[in-house]
Amino acid sequence: MEAKRAAAELAVELLQDGMTVGLGTGSTVYYSIQAIGRKVANGLSIRAVATSVRSEMLAKELDIPMIPFSEVEEIDMTIDGADEADPEWNLIKGGGGALLREKIVADASKQLIIVVDESKLVQRLGRFPLPVEVVPFGFELTQRKLRRLGCEPKLRMSDSQLYMTDNGNYMMDCEFDSIAQPGRLSEELHRIPGVVEHGLFVGMASQVIVGRLDGTAYTLDRVRT
Amino acid sequence: MEAKRAAAELAVELLQDGMTVGLGTGSTVYYSIQAIGRKVANGLSIRAVATSVRSEMLAKELDIPMIPFSEVEEIDMTIDGADEADPEWNLIKGGGGALLREKIVADASKQLIIVVDESKLVQRLGRFPLPVEVVPFGFELTQRKLRRLGCEPKLRMSDSQLYMTDNGNYMMDCEFDSIAQPGRLSEELHRIPGVVEHGLFVGMASQVIVGRLDGTAYTLDRVRT
Repeated sequence: MEAKRAAAELAVELLQDGMTVGLGTGSTVYYSIQAIGRKVANGLSIRAVATSVRSEMLAKELDIPMIPFSEVEEIDMTIDGADEADPEWNLIKGGGGALLREKIVADASKQLIIVVDESKLVQRLGRFPLPVEVVPFGFELTQRKLRRLGCEPKLRMSDSQLYMTDNGNYMMDCEFDSIAQPGRLSEELHRIPGVVEHGLFVGMASQVIVGRLDGTAYTLDRVRT
Repeated sequence: MEAKRAAAELAVELLQDGMTVGLGTGSTVYYSIQAIGRKVANGLSIRAVATSVRSEMLAKELDIPMIPFSEVEEIDMTIDGADEADPEWNLIKGGGGALLREKIVADASKQLIIVVDESKLVQRLGRFPLPVEVVPFGFELTQRKLRRLGCEPKLRMSDSQLYMTDNGNYMMDCEFDSIAQPGRLSEELHRIPGVVEHGLFVGMASQVIVGRLDGTAYTLDRVRT
């Protein structure tokens, strides 16, 4: 908890007056939203868009000014979490099920700030199953295509029913064990027609901020290959 | 009408006993489904899957044996239409709104047979606006991303309301005028997170069968670049 809070609060120090801010989803991000609420109460002037109903409700409770997407020309900075981050700042996201909305917002953001605790750092992505959002129509065909990429795709369940995303799609959690080339896998996944989006965020993060158990936080050094 | 019928009937000659057949959607394909119905009545043994409720209903009326996607391992041959076809057999599809389902089925098919009349042949794709299926969430952001690819994306309407696909998404009809590199544009579109799928079918067709007004039909010579 202290690790998440430390990362979340360090990220919020990056916000500046006048910014349009994207609010991600997840336990670490909620600490960020709380910290933003305190800054807004102390005079910080921003406006925000949210990737989930839960983040939006929390922001509204804290009187953070929210705007609809129709009014957003560009997002200056988005703060979001991740399930895994590698030394090149590539990510796996989507354990929480909001990956599509998170990716749309991240893609529209000038800067994407990722907040994680140390347990999310890996040398190579793929220990965490890669979430892939697929359309319900013909999902069996899509599942076979995914399997040919070398993973075991499992339909996500929720209370013994098929889990459904906010966008009315299914989620396949794909066990790769290890993802050697995230950029290439991303392109291959996009080529499968039934795949709406996937949880690989390649080359999208502007910073990865890591919280330690002792309550301190730091920006992860980026290894470039 | 004679041109469509001629192409449709020539395509059906390719079917063989034992095949699993994909049924596309659209006016030309309906002639194919009727021809398949006659062949089944005369002893042809196939089973079929459909890309739309309308095609499925027509096939069932004609006693064509239908199977659910859960039972399909692979589709041997799919017959479908197109809005445009170029000399390399690249296509624009999706004017009718079923492009996602059509692409899922085409992608799962060993052979994709395209049936068109001569009015659909173009030297270069793009005279027909390219349909792009997008998620409703943050569609304004997606629309801006599409515009940056050099087109004017218009939200499709239906009876003065936003048109919604069978998958619960919106459709943007993107006016490019001319698409010089369909393969490259396809990859660029897939990289936009809010894009579910688009109507460019690049390198997917196995044959393009063209009907003439005089009721004859032929397979389009393929130009390879």
